[in-house]
Amino acid sequence: MSGTTLDTPAPQPGLTGLDLHGVVPPLVTPLDEDGRLDIPSLERLVDHQIGNGVDGLFVAGSSGEVALLDDEARSALVRATVSAAGGRVPVLAGVIDTGTDRVVAHARRAARDGADAVVATPPFYVQPSPAEISDHFRRIAQAADVPLVAYNIPVNVHVALPAETVAELARDGVIAGLKDSSGDLTALRAYLRAAEGTGVRVLTGSETVADVSLQLGAHGVVPGLGNVDPAGYVRLARAAQDGDAAVATSEQERLIRLFRIVTTPSTPGLGGTAAALGAFKAALWLLGVIDHPRTQRPLRPLSAADVDAIRHRLVACGLQPSR
Amino acid sequence: MSGTTLDTPAPQPGLTGLDLHGVVPPLVTPLDEDGRLDIPSLERLVDHQIGNGVDGLFVAGSSGEVALLDDEARSALVRATVSAAGGRVPVLAGVIDTGTDRVVAHARRAARDGADAVVATPPFYVQPSPAEISDHFRRIAQAADVPLVAYNIPVNVHVALPAETVAELARDGVIAGLKDSSGDLTALRAYLRAAEGTGVRVLTGSETVADVSLQLGAHGVVPGLGNVDPAGYVRLARAAQDGDAAVATSEQERLIRLFRIVTTPSTPGLGGTAAALGAFKAALWLLGVIDHPRTQRPLRPLSAADVDAIRHRLVACGLQPSR
Amino acid sequence: MSGTTLDTPAPQPGLTGLDLHGVVPPLVTPLDEDGRLDIPSLERLVDHQIGNGVDGLFVAGSSGEVALLDDEARSALVRATVSAAGGRVPVLAGVIDTGTDRVVAHARRAARDGADAVVATPPFYVQPSPAEISDHFRRIAQAADVPLVAYNIPVNVHVALPAETVAELARDGVIAGLKDSSGDLTALRAYLRAAEGTGVRVLTGSETVADVSLQLGAHGVVPGLGNVDPAGYVRLARAAQDGDAAVATSEQERLIRLFRIVTTPSTPGLGGTAAALGAFKAALWLLGVIDHPRTQRPLRPLSAADVDAIRHRLVACGLQPSR
Amino acid sequence: MSGTTLDTPAPQPGLTGLDLHGVVPPLVTPLDEDGRLDIPSLERLVDHQIGNGVDGLFVAGSSGEVALLDDEARSALVRATVSAAGGRVPVLAGVIDTGTDRVVAHARRAARDGADAVVATPPFYVQPSPAEISDHFRRIAQAADVPLVAYNIPVNVHVALPAETVAELARDGVIAGLKDSSGDLTALRAYLRAAEGTGVRVLTGSETVADVSLQLGAHGVVPGLGNVDPAGYVRLARAAQDGDAAVATSEQERLIRLFRIVTTPSTPGLGGTAAALGAFKAALWLLGVIDHPRTQRPLRPLSAADVDAIRHRLVACGLQPSR
Repeated sequence: MSGTTLDTPAPQPGLTGLDLHGVVPPLVTPLDEDGRLDIPSLERLVDHQIGNGVDGLFVAGSSGEVALLDDEARSALVRATVSAAGGRVPVLAGVIDTGTDRVVAHARRAARDGADAVVATPPFYVQPSPAEISDHFRRIAQAADVPLVAYNIPVNVHVALPAETVAELARDGVIAGLKDSSGDLTALRAYLRAAEGTGVRVLTGSETVADVSLQLGAHGVVPGLGNVDPAGYVRLARAAQDGDAAVATSEQERLIRLFRIVTTPSTPGLGGTAAALGAFKAALWLLGVIDHPRTQRPLRPLSAADVDAIRHRLVACGLQPSR
Repeated sequence: MSGTTLDTPAPQPGLTGLDLHGVVPPLVTPLDEDGRLDIPSLERLVDHQIGNGVDGLFVAGSSGEVALLDDEARSALVRATVSAAGGRVPVLAGVIDTGTDRVVAHARRAARDGADAVVATPPFYVQPSPAEISDHFRRIAQAADVPLVAYNIPVNVHVALPAETVAELARDGVIAGLKDSSGDLTALRAYLRAAEGTGVRVLTGSETVADVSLQLGAHGVVPGLGNVDPAGYVRLARAAQDGDAAVATSEQERLIRLFRIVTTPSTPGLGGTAAALGAFKAALWLLGVIDHPRTQRPLRPLSAADVDAIRHRLVACGLQPSR
Repeated sequence: MSGTTLDTPAPQPGLTGLDLHGVVPPLVTPLDEDGRLDIPSLERLVDHQIGNGVDGLFVAGSSGEVALLDDEARSALVRATVSAAGGRVPVLAGVIDTGTDRVVAHARRAARDGADAVVATPPFYVQPSPAEISDHFRRIAQAADVPLVAYNIPVNVHVALPAETVAELARDGVIAGLKDSSGDLTALRAYLRAAEGTGVRVLTGSETVADVSLQLGAHGVVPGLGNVDPAGYVRLARAAQDGDAAVATSEQERLIRLFRIVTTPSTPGLGGTAAALGAFKAALWLLGVIDHPRTQRPLRPLSAADVDAIRHRLVACGLQPSR
Repeated sequence: MSGTTLDTPAPQPGLTGLDLHGVVPPLVTPLDEDGRLDIPSLERLVDHQIGNGVDGLFVAGSSGEVALLDDEARSALVRATVSAAGGRVPVLAGVIDTGTDRVVAHARRAARDGADAVVATPPFYVQPSPAEISDHFRRIAQAADVPLVAYNIPVNVHVALPAETVAELARDGVIAGLKDSSGDLTALRAYLRAAEGTGVRVLTGSETVADVSLQLGAHGVVPGLGNVDPAGYVRLARAAQDGDAAVATSEQERLIRLFRIVTTPSTPGLGGTAAALGAFKAALWLLGVIDHPRTQRPLRPLSAADVDAIRHRLVACGLQPSR
């Protein structure tokens, strides 16, 4: 773990002792041919990340197919990741679920399983108000034994986390961090203002505006594509930290080209999630990091032609597939 | 349970022995002041429904705040409802969750808890294709020991169940029924065509076009407002069954006026789900059926003024509050 | 024009003398190979409609590609339609545009061109409030010399016309009618209640729930598919008027099957509007009613294969193509 | 007009002689108390802009209430603006309308009225495909005698302009520029790549990420808020041009605080467009630039309390109201 932090203001260790910053990839969940957690692949994935200099790991998030894993699988995943990380970097665990009591149960389990922090979205399936979203996070924070990171991901949750709610939760010490996957830099700016002076760390989930987000003051990046090319995002983040905008931007542009693997798949019957996560897994399989490219049911697998197109794009973007 | 069915074609007992038809209210989940399941209130609610002639009960659905209940609460709720129903009408249990493995776990538990059928939506939080939605239902059906009802509720799930998928699942005997809460009669017609000749029962979740849905051939109605006025929906359904459109429509128009209780609440900080389910619960509390109007956290309670406005509307629509 | 009206209550000639009821097809706009108004085809289309018993004509609406016609073409179209109708049935003219002053200009022109009424949507491109939508219609009504019909079509306008606004406009005599193309029967019911006792006529723009809409009290139907099969909708409406629900529904089911021509086209590069309006025009061309199937630029033409598939569907639904 | 350009690569005079760059505010349209064009106010507004160093003017755009102006008003507005600008900076004219033929008519008129370029959106009200959007722009470019700028504004048009379409139009010399009002920097980056090497200029319509957009290579900014504070955006753009990110960002942060005037209004009955454009006009009235704050019918006026709140915000952001 890097001894320095990325944020322009002097590093503050957060309200909670969690020093959240830099590159924190949201890990995919390696599965074997039967859809069971593939621990050797997971260990290689963790080493692939840490060996390339990431500053933390986010497990059981959207990229980790958390919505498709039952409670036992989630728990095993957190335990195995914590074990594989071995204290080298902090491990954040997603505790994504529809309602407060359900998230509380996940959060307690994740803390017992060794997670350094938990990451929760607003309630979904239901239609909550901002006040109810605030209550939701307050109850989770009370119940969890580890720091709480709020997660804005309207594409999945279908409600946005208002900046005013973030300001209030930050001021009251409810949250230690915020992950914003809206991709909207006007929203990110509002979150950064909301967090100002509170020690709350703001991270972007964007693959494609990571450079700009860091330049605007975001403390870190949580890019799904970081699974495939952690070294790229680490170079980008270091350059942004050093004020070298040209290098950060150049690296970002290469990563934007690489990110096209998620729109590459054209296998019939494939949904949007299967295409994106399938592409990450196919790339990791091609790179020799994981043993099986499969995603969790009911997501469909990519065709051989799609995998082949991904191989070509990896090569075009400077990566070296071993398969 | 009524010995007759509502559908215009001769009653078919389904592929599965489940005779799904008529009025099947999606029960609210009565809670005590601490948010724990209030079993005496639940028993009164079940008697209130069965005593007024409903043909089945749907527990742990959207109206039952399923998204806000942890696994223990869901399980206790199903057991208590099955026990309270005592075999007088079939009990359907919602097994709503984001992904296949999670739904399968709920479905097995619900079957053990005594549910006569389980009700599942397409996957959410993720973005599934129609083929993946189909696989999802097939796996649930394989794993569950009771009949499966597919549940179309795009307002919560943010994806619609395609009629072609329903046709395929119906033809292959995967599903025993379909609950459509889209409120879209063009969609309902397409589902009815998809189910034609398969024995699959199609029920509407609409409070406001129940009469028309039955006239078009829907086999039953699953209206949240049925919690409050089961007798009204039973009259409506019987009239539709008897071909008495004038009575069905007149009853429907009264129920539309009553349904305004869900748009009545103006308590600050209240979200859409809290307003609607809070209104149902406030009405049941006013009618003396349940002991507490509270909804599950993080939903906020209705103000006294909102409850008072609901009391007035109950009276205006011919109901007799005891509080 | 039929001497009888469809509405269950005794026919009322409206505030304005406009007796709006029955089948009022929204005419496509026949164009020649260069995209100019094809008047001989238009005359045959008008005769095709009136000869099959329709009760009015709606020209320059969404089905008439109004958004793609310049002011001269709109004006020529209204004049030619009025002339072709020759007073046999009333002619309504769409005056669809983004803002009040623009709609007022169209409305004055349409009145001069002989239209019996004008049809306007809420403002679009901008984001109006209900109060602003109300002001919009009031100013149009003041400026126009003919009755005003309000047009709810959220799929194109991206804002819905609130039932409360309709109630207020109806009560104040601002509008003579309402065309609802939402396809939402709960909304239609709210509009019918809003219009109750005011003489305002409510028509549905739905192709697929026309039967049910009439049974609920709608005074007429404005189905785009009526271009292709006016006799079908006239039979449907007459049956609904006579209380013969079985015949109305059976006709509706056939028309639903016929309506699949709008989802048939798979020509590459074809947008949604081009597919639907291209299908209506292809069908009219196949039936020998119009001379050219082309739509207005920039809409792309259907491929020969798509036209052929439409021919097969016409035959399957009992129509007799002459090409 | 400034002799220097903002873009990092060496300035290229475009395919068309139009040197589009820097700050190009989308002018509001000053109206008198009766809703007629207020030419003295327009002249002061133009001087206010040019005197503060803007590089061009965009008239009859979304901020200019183009959707609410009839053809005569649009034409008078373009002529008056061209006359007031007197050749000091180029004048771009919006030719916003639903379909190709309508836009062509506007474009020819705008060219006759002296506009240096015209700005058009994809078709709306209809649902066009990318191929049809492409055809739309090609026909406009053929018919217009001045350069064409494509305008991406999905919030109003409800369809996004695909980057692939922009690439093709840029390569073929159809468009001279692109205004992107999506606020999405991932989209802006894709547009910049699409325009690379073609001479096409890319401008952002964002008020709140103008600094970052310029740093990523955008050639200019078209911020509605520039009406109120042109000097602020000119400072921002000059700083970005000079590579002084700290100054650009600091100015941007102040402008973000100023931009809250558009969310300030709480007058009952006010829609979103009336609130935003009403706030710009109220601010210009408070600053003594225009004589009347009114917007075009049917937009409602701001209350005195809202205007007062805007006055306070102007002061708080360093501007000096004279009223």
